Parts: sequence; C-alpha cells; structure tokens
Amino acid sequence: MRAALYLDAGHVVVDDVPDPTVQQPTDAVVRVVRSCVCGSDLWAYRDTFKREPRSRLGHEFIGTVEEVGSAVSTLRPGDFVVAPFSYGCGACWWCRHGLPTSCPQSGTWGGGDHDGAQGEALRVPFADANLVVIPGGVEAYDDAGLLDLLATSDVMATGLHGAVMAGVTDGVTAVVVGDGAVGLCAVLGAVTLLKAEQVILLSRNPTRQALGRQFGATDVVAVRGEEAKEAVLDLTNGHGAEAVVEAVGTPDSWTTALDVVCDGGQVGAVGVPHTAPTIETMPLLSRNLGVRVGIAPVRRYLPDLVERVVAGSLAAGAVFDLTLTLEQTPEAYVAMDRREAIKVALVP
Amino acid sequence: MRAALYLDAGHVVVDDVPDPTVQQPTDAVVRVVRSCVCGSDLWAYRDTFKREPRSRLGHEFIGTVEEVGSAVSTLRPGDFVVAPFSYGCGACWWCRHGLPTSCPQSGTWGGGDHDGAQGEALRVPFADANLVVIPGGVEAYDDAGLLDLLATSDVMATGLHGAVMAGVTDGVTAVVVGDGAVGLCAVLGAVTLLKAEQVILLSRNPTRQALGRQFGATDVVAVRGEEAKEAVLDLTNGHGAEAVVEAVGTPDSWTTALDVVCDGGQVGAVGVPHTAPTIETMPLLSRNLGVRVGIAPVRRYLPDLVERVVAGSLAAGAVFDLTLTLEQTPEAYVAMDRREAIKVALVP
Repeated sequence: MRAALYLDAGHVVVDDVPDPTVQQPTDAVVRVVRSCVCGSDLWAYRDTFKREPRSRLGHEFIGTVEEVGSAVSTLRPGDFVVAPFSYGCGACWWCRHGLPTSCPQSGTWGGGDHDGAQGEALRVPFADANLVVIPGGVEAYDDAGLLDLLATSDVMATGLHGAVMAGVTDGVTAVVVGDGAVGLCAVLGAVTLLKAEQVILLSRNPTRQALGRQFGATDVVAVRGEEAKEAVLDLTNGHGAEAVVEAVGTPDSWTTALDVVCDGGQVGAVGVPHTAPTIETMPLLSRNLGVRVGIAPVRRYLPDLVERVVAGSLAAGAVFDLTLTLEQTPEAYVAMDRREAIKVALVP
Repeated sequence: MRAALYLDAGHVVVDDVPDPTVQQPTDAVVRVVRSCVCGSDLWAYRDTFKREPRSRLGHEFIGTVEEVGSAVSTLRPGDFVVAPFSYGCGACWWCRHGLPTSCPQSGTWGGGDHDGAQGEALRVPFADANLVVIPGGVEAYDDAGLLDLLATSDVMATGLHGAVMAGVTDGVTAVVVGDGAVGLCAVLGAVTLLKAEQVILLSRNPTRQALGRQFGATDVVAVRGEEAKEAVLDLTNGHGAEAVVEAVGTPDSWTTALDVVCDGGQVGAVGVPHTAPTIETMPLLSRNLGVRVGIAPVRRYLPDLVERVVAGSLAAGAVFDLTLTLEQTPEAYVAMDRREAIKVALVP
C-alpha cells in the first residue's frame, strides 16, 4: 500500500510500504477514509525536532475497520471509526481516569515505528479502548461531514482542551492567542461547548479572522504585543479576560497571554511549543494567576464530540481549507509550511 | 505609643511613635489586642528584601475599634475586629469580585508609610470594607481563642488559599510541601474546610510533624528531594497527589512539588518566594499539569473563618508556639529567624 514517509527536513515522499496486519489480539486494521496534516507534523519538516528517516507520518484519521484481532469485542469489520491522535491501553489507572496521554503504553500514530495516518491503512493497538464508532457508517456522511468528523481526532479536541485548561466556563470572557487550526477550534469549543459569553480572537489574517467569527468569536484583535494588550483591556473594561488559551507556543505568545489574562484568571496551553517557554512565578503571585499546560487526552472528549457532529451542532471541518490526495501529501506539507493553508485534508 | 520599627538587617527595636489618628472619613483607629511575626517579616530582617529604616512592622492583628471616621457605617468604637493582612478599597471591580489584593488602592499594614500591626494601635483605611467584627467582644475569648482568631488574619487564610489554589476538593489526596505556619495551616484548611481524604505533610521537624498530625495530616514524609518523591508515590499507589501546596518558595521545593503531583493535577503556591523560581512549560505538557500562584485575598475568606473559630470548629492558634510582649518584639524576630519558634504572638 501507499503511505507518506519523512525523509529529512523539507522532504516528504509517498512510497510503497508493507500492508498493515493484526499483530496483537487487541489490534485492528483500519482503512483510512480521511487523514490530514497537523501543525506538529511541520516540526521535523522544519528541522525543529529530529525524526527517523523513512518514518511514517500523520496522526489524525477516520476510517473503516478492515480486520480485528481475536480479543477485540466492540468493533467489527465495516465499522466507521475515528481515533484519538494518541492511544492508551484503556485498562491502566490513567486510562480509566480519562488521561490516556499519561498511560505507560501510550503512543501516537506515526511515532516510533507505528504506522502513520497519512497512508492507505494502519494497524491500531488497543482497538477497543481507542476507536470510537461513528453511527450510520461512512456512507451516511458527505465530504463536509467527513471533515467535521476528522477534526475531532485532534484539532477540535485539542482546541477544546485548551479552553478547558484555561478554565472557560459559562458566561466568562475568553481570549484565544493564535489563529491556527487549534486556536480556531478553541474559539469554537469555548463558544459552543463551554458557553463563554465573549471570545476575543487574536489574529492578523483576514481569512482566519473570518473563520474565527464563523466559529463564534465576538471580537477580533488584529495587532500584537503591547497593542494587543491594550486592545483586549479596552474590550474587557480594563480587567482582561478570565480565561486565555495560548495556542501558539512561543515566548512572545506566552507574554501576550499573561498580559491579557485578568488577575485571578488562568492561561491554558495545548500542543507542543516550538520553543520551551519558562514562566516566572513571581509575577503570578501578586495577580493570583493560574497556568495549565497539557497535551489533549482526546479519547476523553471523542464520544461527546462525535455525537455533536452527528447531531449537526458541531462543525469544525471548516478548518480544512484545502483537500488533496494522499499522493499529493508533499504538496500538503508545502502549503502548510508556507501558511497558504490553515489545515490540509488528505484523501487516500 | 509604642511600636516595632525596622532599623536595618537583623535590627528591630520598639520605640515611641505618634498615636494614630483618623485621617480620612473612611478610617478607623484600632487598638491592637494581639499581633504576631510573619515569615515574610524576616525577609528584610535577613536582608533579602530592602525596607526603609524606621519603617513600621507587622501586618497581622486583632483589636478593638477606638475611633471611626464620619463615613464609617458598619463599625462602632468598642467593636472587636480582625483585619486581613492586606486591605482593599471595597468598592472597585477587584474588591467586589473577591480579589482585594488586586485593588489599585491595596496596601498592607507596615508597608510604605502605613502603620504596622506590631504596635499598640494603628490607623485602618477603608475600615468598613476590611475589618470583620468578631461576635461577643474581646471579653468572650480566652488566650487560646484570641490566637485562633489572630491566625485568620493571614496564616490560616493563606494556608487555606494555598489548598484552594492547589485544587483541593472533597476526597482528593493532597501533599503540603513545607512545615512552616502556612504549610501547617494548609493542612488544616485542606482537611477541615476542603475535605481532602489524604493529606501528606513533608516535614523533618518532630514538633511540626506533631502539629501537622494534630491539624489532620494523614501521613508525614520526613525526607527530601528524590526520597520524598519516592515516599509520596509509595503513599499514592504510584500516581502522586492530585493537589500539592508549595509552601516554601525555593526552586528545590518547587521541584519537589512538581515531582509529587500526579499527572492532571495542580500545584498551588502562596506567599512571596525567597527566590523567584521559574517553571518550564515543556515538562508540564506531557503531564497535563496546572500551577496557580497567588497572594491570599484574605478578606474573601475571613467571615467564614471567623464563624468557624467562634463555633469552635477551627483552631489554627496552635501555630503560635511562643507568646511575647510587644516590648520583646526583637526577641520574637530572633526566635523566628533561628526557627526556634514556628510563629510568635505579641501582646501589646
């Protein structure tokens, strides 16, 4: 079968790889219906992080179950499923407490020697624990519906997690720093699921501003740094926002996040930062500030997110502003790298 | 009248100062019944922070109202009152939202040119907003009761705030790093007010361990560093504690706090750190950790704390293991500086 492979910085190819097979009784093999490229896929592409040459790529997918191991009890061939971008064993204390990202057996598609999602099919360990069945089967969804479902595997859940980590609750004012797909989904999560009253998106890109407003942002701030601080304070009676999602991951974006959060408030950050910002505790003290940082435990959110997509009340698929074929994966990386696309979907 | 004055590092004296007077219509003058020495009073004493020569000292007191300004409506001469260690205006957005520490007019007794609590009397600005009347009058309380009330002005409220910031709730496991008066009160707050199920105190001092157990600590860990981490993990099925109060303020204690918190948990820190530790965000990411740091908005907690003391269900006064006279204030500083006393009460 065909799959995307990382060669070295700036070089992704699509090549022949062995067909996936059931190796453990708890495995499933899933044929990919849609996958996509994540901002974090760009780190090795940009040589920020190291990755093994010819390693598999992609960690977001929806697909149909093709084969299951003998110990898989909740899935059957033909089931239409979505996977969280990282998996857990489903049985340990962490998995049972909704934090599969801390499972000792946790891994991510395309990480280590695991199959990646940017391919025709992949082997899924602990299939019962990780795959969530989407009702109606793949035939029940049109192209837009498929992208809404695909978004739940990472970017929608990660954006929502950012808003949860920031402490967004009913009626609060939230700021989202960053207009990438995660930031935009944080807006959608804050508005639709967590019922924030006011959501201010920091974005200087007209296309992304428009999508942010479509997702429910009540205000857009199109400046940076000190100007952004002033603009947010103007929009919040001089107090700042109770909840701030930091969805960029640079020292500058952290500075802005701490500038616009109100005293007593909280900054939530998700996604691996480009650099590793440090936070000084002293400035937090007089302001009673909180900071939460965490990789999204997507599996915790998936059933609810899928239910909302199926019910027609959640549509994050608009973050995919370009769809290419699997064979065009190298072009997808170029488009993402140049910020010509917010997020690129791939059709095998 | 007599009051303690800071001269320079290691030098505190008691000297004559002008009697306090009502200067603003919102002022009250309060005669001190009990005050005390705080760990933070030692910073200038130890030359960690600068302080003006001959500046007044002390920010914790209970007392009786002696005189009120024309605009004071809720207090009368003779009222027995407790004050939060820092005051707010009572009218601004921050004060109305329970965060008087962020009030633009906030100040603390003994800070700047304000009267200090380590004296016979002091002027209290915004008296209506800050002073909380203690029912029954001063005659209703014995020595122990007075110390329980005095503790609410800072150390009990600050310890409780630490537990709140750490996210202690009904049934959780909490760790308190630090056996100073604040750490001990964090144990008491976590157990008595927030209903933690298991509270592990890190302490190597037998006297403080005993007081920690008296305050409800279920376990004591008497080692530091890597050994403390192992001991806490052993006590928590290998997971760590959901909530950790950092009540020391050094880089080492922060490291321990982050070592013993479980993934998905939170560290709460109160009190001005000796140094200013920085936190790296990257290690928080994979573990989904939260950090909250904040000076206690004592006024928010005071009515409830006073009610509990009066009802006999909260007795933090045991942290005062030495009582001296106001004239003996220099000895009180020596005892605190040498860690010969946990906390010293002063009788004018």
